[in-house]
This record gives sequence, structure tokens and C-alpha cells, in this order.
Amino acid sequence: MEPDFRRIEDDALRLLDQLCRQPSISAEGQALQETADLVGELLAEAGFEVRQLRADDGPPAVYGEQRGQSAYTLLLYNHYDVQPVDPLELWETPPFDPSLRDGCLFARGAADNKGELAVRLAVARAFREGGMLPIGIRWIVEGEEEVGSPHFDEIVRRNAELLRADGCLWEGAPARLGDGRPSIGLGFKGALMVRLDVRVLRSDAHSAAAAVAPSAAWRMVEALSTLRDRDSSVRIAGFYDSVVPPTDAERHALEDESDSIEEDLREELGSDFGGLTGAPWRERLAFGPTCNIAGLTSGYTGPGLKSVLTARATANLDFRLVPDQQPEEIHELLRSHLDAEGFEDVEITVLVSAEAAGTPIEHPFVQRVAHVAQSVAGARPSITPRIGATLPIIASLDRHIGVPGVAAPGNPFHFGARAHAPNENVRVDDVGRAVRFTYALFEDLATAH
Amino acid sequence: MEPDFRRIEDDALRLLDQLCRQPSISAEGQALQETADLVGELLAEAGFEVRQLRADDGPPAVYGEQRGQSAYTLLLYNHYDVQPVDPLELWETPPFDPSLRDGCLFARGAADNKGELAVRLAVARAFREGGMLPIGIRWIVEGEEEVGSPHFDEIVRRNAELLRADGCLWEGAPARLGDGRPSIGLGFKGALMVRLDVRVLRSDAHSAAAAVAPSAAWRMVEALSTLRDRDSSVRIAGFYDSVVPPTDAERHALEDESDSIEEDLREELGSDFGGLTGAPWRERLAFGPTCNIAGLTSGYTGPGLKSVLTARATANLDFRLVPDQQPEEIHELLRSHLDAEGFEDVEITVLVSAEAAGTPIEHPFVQRVAHVAQSVAGARPSITPRIGATLPIIASLDRHIGVPGVAAPGNPFHFGARAHAPNENVRVDDVGRAVRFTYALFEDLATAH
Repeated sequence: MEPDFRRIEDDALRLLDQLCRQPSISAEGQALQETADLVGELLAEAGFEVRQLRADDGPPAVYGEQRGQSAYTLLLYNHYDVQPVDPLELWETPPFDPSLRDGCLFARGAADNKGELAVRLAVARAFREGGMLPIGIRWIVEGEEEVGSPHFDEIVRRNAELLRADGCLWEGAPARLGDGRPSIGLGFKGALMVRLDVRVLRSDAHSAAAAVAPSAAWRMVEALSTLRDRDSSVRIAGFYDSVVPPTDAERHALEDESDSIEEDLREELGSDFGGLTGAPWRERLAFGPTCNIAGLTSGYTGPGLKSVLTARATANLDFRLVPDQQPEEIHELLRSHLDAEGFEDVEITVLVSAEAAGTPIEHPFVQRVAHVAQSVAGARPSITPRIGATLPIIASLDRHIGVPGVAAPGNPFHFGARAHAPNENVRVDDVGRAVRFTYALFEDLATAH
Repeated sequence: MEPDFRRIEDDALRLLDQLCRQPSISAEGQALQETADLVGELLAEAGFEVRQLRADDGPPAVYGEQRGQSAYTLLLYNHYDVQPVDPLELWETPPFDPSLRDGCLFARGAADNKGELAVRLAVARAFREGGMLPIGIRWIVEGEEEVGSPHFDEIVRRNAELLRADGCLWEGAPARLGDGRPSIGLGFKGALMVRLDVRVLRSDAHSAAAAVAPSAAWRMVEALSTLRDRDSSVRIAGFYDSVVPPTDAERHALEDESDSIEEDLREELGSDFGGLTGAPWRERLAFGPTCNIAGLTSGYTGPGLKSVLTARATANLDFRLVPDQQPEEIHELLRSHLDAEGFEDVEITVLVSAEAAGTPIEHPFVQRVAHVAQSVAGARPSITPRIGATLPIIASLDRHIGVPGVAAPGNPFHFGARAHAPNENVRVDDVGRAVRFTYALFEDLATAH
């Protein structure tokens, strides 16, 4: 009997509204325990045995477990934390007061990642109404993804037995791209995120002294300007040495990938990507390592004027890394580069260090997810061999459990979703698509053993 | 009869405490009318006829006028506004709750410029107790000096008749340098302060997109890095073309200037000035134009992480200019430079534009002030031909009134005063010295006609 998908979709939207009212900003330590408690209650209502898992520090991860009709066990990963909301003035409606308009639900976290959490919950609740789930589910919902999951590895290490499974759905990929194809992601880039600090004076001074004394803002600009050429290529010696080019199968996937990814991102950003387009554009996005300035602060740029000679400057850099770049090695190369360029005084603090990780395109689990995605959507899935973002949890799952995983098209996420930016949103239509895929996959995996 | 200077000093400290309780931050539009009203009341109590002068916009300047026993009329300039207080966490006591400790009074504005205002007020009150002032005084106290005096020129133009005088004391120089010599300043650098803005994306995006899309932070770093060499020399073509070297008399003054200026600034900043020292150091401070980054902001450097690809970046630049550099011309050269380097998209907004201005070292008014300073201090004054800061009001006074002026040693300002920085302060001893000099100068000028 065909389930009432419209009812499950409505349930998912209600759950999403409820989850998005929690201002669970991990970077600011806001409302994390409260949100973990709420997620635990919702999992328990859906029939899961629930507990909170902790490392020595940090907010808890919520863990839920439920047996199914078949012996197949699927591990689900989500996160309940969200990005900060600034610049707040650019939000059309308040970030934690979800607003439904133009067929979209707007709220911080709606797309990243509470939407998918709500969809999976609604599907589990629907199966429970009819009895047991078709498959066993183990589910971990952490609270620090947006700050690089600093305690997730320790939590997984301590609880590896709880988390063993036959396959894993990570934080997922869009249920539908602009051209109607579902999206599947097989891996993520690694990341090295660092804070650079420089201090050249005891304190900020009147800028009259600029004639004779050093400036932290200038020092930082000079140091940063040595890191990259204007064509975006990284000038740190050795940075590209261990980069592995895509395999033939990966290149084939890149050729077959949806053009919508590029079109949607162009529309979202209002950028022409300097003329790069098509498969070469997708190869750069998937296989090109980056050195990005995520933040830069020195002196005063508030209202009016404050004409100071700056004592201190800070920059946050995030490097997105590809196989086989090791974040520790890139950190060492960065230090050597700054020293060689005369910037021994620029201090480096590592904020996040995560290896690239993923599942080979030939793995049977990948093929099964792709098959279900095609059946539900009626369109060939667009397979992204490596997503440009970083999900450090994958390396932890690899290391301690060794479970094959994918970013499956059960995520109501689209490329105009503005994750990490003002006016984050999901489309109601995509919530429905994500529900149908997730429902079908749970049923299909029951036949996998 | 020798006046009771200790009583005048105590009166000045009481007035200073009262003035510093007003958080009159012009950059933030705070408490300006309230402070203007307070200054007006204090001037009226000291026997001045008071009115508030206005341009079409902006806070009022307070004007006071009082006849004296002699026909000599002296114009006084002060400002009642102060710099912003951030970073607030570096203040040992709250910036607007004056704290007397270690022989110093700590408060925002204590040194720049409410200390001198309080000293002049206390001296005028003391003379009034004995009858008429020895000289006529006209006094203008404006409220926008720390944002570049955007309305002062208009106020002076409209009220030129009110402001005519035989000599003028600008915002003053330290009553006593570290080696005991009083300080006199004869001119100020010009300034061009601009805001640079660049926008490359519709909004901040997930930094995964850094592989294929432009970054505002990088764009700004690249643009800024073309402006200066690492040795601080400015790379804008034509920047130095109209710089006039010091005259023989100015070089002589530089040779004779106090070493304490350098020693005090070295101590304050904790910088060794890259080995530059002595008269060449003083020449650079007085006659070297600068390109300083007063502020730099892009993306996020708050607590935790926000790994964005930045859509916008802002930098505040302040150029300190020397004769005959014209700020309008430097603005044009900056625009041409950015265009030539491929940064047509970097927008320039002019915030402050002020010419260098001053009084020739040979002027009789300079000689008279120097003579009084030497008599009171018992030490040869250290004459600075050009102060590294900018006082745009001087060009306005030159243009509309043509009155000779100096920065006289009646300012309780020392080089550890941390003007524009946290823990701004004046020394109580210097308040006493400033009182004695100001008292003596008023008496001496009565004999000038």
C-alpha cells in the first residue's frame, strides 16, 4: 500500500519548524544542551532507545537505536548545531523564527542540517505507525559539526560497538538538482582551518605614529599576500605535491554530473567563475584544494572614523584539502612558508584539522543508493565523487568503524539554500522528495541481506 | 602676587573629571549635545558670553567671548568630542568613569582634548576672581575633531568675524616632555582618509565554493598589497612628487628637538622603529607622508568558526600628507593606481580630506610663546616644525581668518597618554605645568600691543 506521503511531509515540516526554533549555534555555545534534549525526545517518540554520548568536553551527541524487520542495520548521521547568523541585518525574517513563504521555509539550520533530520524522523515515525521499521537503524546526531566536530572522533572511538552498521548515510546531498536529477556525494574534502595572529605594538596607537612604527594590519596583509597568486593558485612550497588526480571512473562521473550544480551556484553567488565552466569547473570544485580567507580583522571599520595604527591583526584561513594532502603536513608547510618569507612573528593556531575521506564509486552500497534514487526520481542520479565541503566525521567513522557511506539524496537541500549565509532556506517540494527517497531506501535495504 | 596655582590645578582636575563623565564619542554620535551644553555652562560660569555655532548638520561648536584689560585678543581652539573606546576589554577602569591612580587621571578624553580644555577653563576662572582677564579671549570648542571636523570649515566661514584674533592657540602640545623641556608644535600634517569597499558575490557563501568563485577578502588583500612596499614606502605613482623637504630652519629645529619624543613613543609602543633614531627619526615623523590601514574587516573572526567565502571586504586607509601634497590629488592618484593594477571594482569613499597647515618658525607669535615656555619651565622648548597628526581646523582658520597659531605647551598631554587607545590618561603634575604656562602666557600677551 502506498503510504500517505503528503502527511509524512507535513509531519517533517512541523518537526523542522520545532527544531529551527532552537538557536543552537555551536560557535557561540548557544542552546546546545536544550537542542540535544529536544532531539532525544523526538527520537524517543519515534520508537528509538535514546542516550546522550559525550567526550570529556563539549555538548552531547544524541544516540538512538531501533531494531527492524530485517537484519540490515543502517547508520544515520546528522547534526543539530548551526552556523552563526551574522550579518543579522541581512535576514528578511528572524533566523530562529521559521517563516514559510514562496514555497520555502526560511530559518538558520533549515537546510544545514535540521531539514534532513526532520525528514528522517518523519519517515521513521510513519514506519512505526505500521509496526516495526523495515531495517534496523542506529542514529547519531552531533552538536559540533559547524565548528569542525572537535569531539566526534573521541565519541565514536568510545562507542564504536554502538555504531557498527552495514551502511551509513552521512549528512545528505540534494534530493533534486535544478534539472530534476537526484544528487549523490561520495566523499568530502579535508580541511585545515587556522587562525593567524600578529602583534607588533603594545596597543593601538594614534596613526601619526605610522610614519615611524610598524602596523599589524600591514604586516598581516603582507603575510597573506605571499600565500596566493592572483589566479588563486597557492604559493606555499609543496602545497600541491601530494595531490592525487581523479581516476578514470571519477572523471567519468564528473563528465556525467549535472550542469545544475554550476548554474545554481552561479545564480546564488552572482559570479561568472572567471569563465571556467562544465566538467573542468566541476573538477576544480571537487578536486581543487583551496586557501580561503574566512575572516580578517584589524583596527576599526565601524561607523565614523578611528584613525589608529593597529597593534594586532587576525585572519582565519581555511584550506580545503584533497587526497592525499594531510592537514598536519599542510600546517607545517604553512609555517615553513611564513618563516621563509620573513613572517616568523605571525602565529598559527590550528582550529580544525580533518582528512579528506570517502567511499569508492564502485562500492555496492553506492550502486544500491543510486538505483533507489533513480527509481524514486525517475532521473539518472548526478554523482559527485568529492564534495567541496568538509565532513570530518567521515574520517572518524572510517577509522573506528569502517562503514561504507554516502551523502544520499534524502536531504531537502538546494543550491540556493544559502547554508552558512543569511536567509537560509529549504523548499517544501524538496522536503516531499527527500521523504519519498528516504522511505524507499529504508524499504529497499531490507532486501540487501 | 603669585597666584595659588595648587588651587587652580585642583579646580582643573575637578572640571576634567566632570567633562570626562560625558561619553561624547563623535564617531558614534553619542552625548554630543549634552556635552556642548555642559561646556557652554562652564564657559558662562567663567564669565564668557556663550552661544552655540552650527553648520546645517552636525553637533554644535560652543563659542565663548570675553573682553580683557588689554586690546590683545587670543583665539583658543579645543574639542569636546573623543575617540571610540573599543577594545573596551583592555581598559583597566571604565572609560567614562574617571579614575585617579599612580598620579594620573584615566579616562577617554582626559588627554585628547578635555585636559587642556579644563586647564584653560580653570585659568580663566582664576583671572575672573581677580577682575577682568588680562587679554580678550575668543574660544571655540567643537564636537567633531575626532571624525575629521567635517562641519568646522563651514562654521568658521559663517562666523569669521566672531573668531578674528591676534594669535591662536590650537589644541596644544605637551607641557613637559620626558627630559623636562616644554613642547611647541608649529603645524600638522594633512590627511586623506578613505574607505575602500569591494564586493564580489551576492552574499557570503559556504567556503566550499572558494575552489571556483572569487573572495572579497582575497581581493582586498591583493589590492592593498599593491599600495606599499615592505619598507613602508608608498607605491602609488606620483605620491611623493609634490613633497617639499624641510627648510634649513626646520632642520635646525629637528636637530634641537627633544630625544624624549622618540624615547617615550618607543616605550609606549614597545617598538624599536626598525633601527631608525634621532634627528632622522624625527624628520620621518614630521616630514614623512604615510599610507596606514586604520581598519580591515571581512568575513568572520569572532569566537569559534565560520568558514565562509566572503562577499564583501572593507578597509579604512589614512594617508598623512605633507606640504605640498593635496588630498584631492592623492585621492586621484589612488584611484588611478587601483585602476592600473586591475582593481577598478574597489570603491573609494572619501571620509576626510585636509591639507597640511602651519605657522612659519620665524613668526613673532612663535617666538613669544617659546619665550614664555622657557621662562615658566626653566628649559629650552622643543619645537616640532610639523606634528605627525592632522588638525584640519588649522587650514580652515588659515583660509577664513588668517590668524597665526601654535600648539602651545599648555596641554597636560604626555607621550604615554594613550590618546585614541585604551587607558587614556593625563598626569596630575602635567596639569599643574599646563596651568602655570597658560596663566603666564595670558599675562605676557597683555603686553604684546
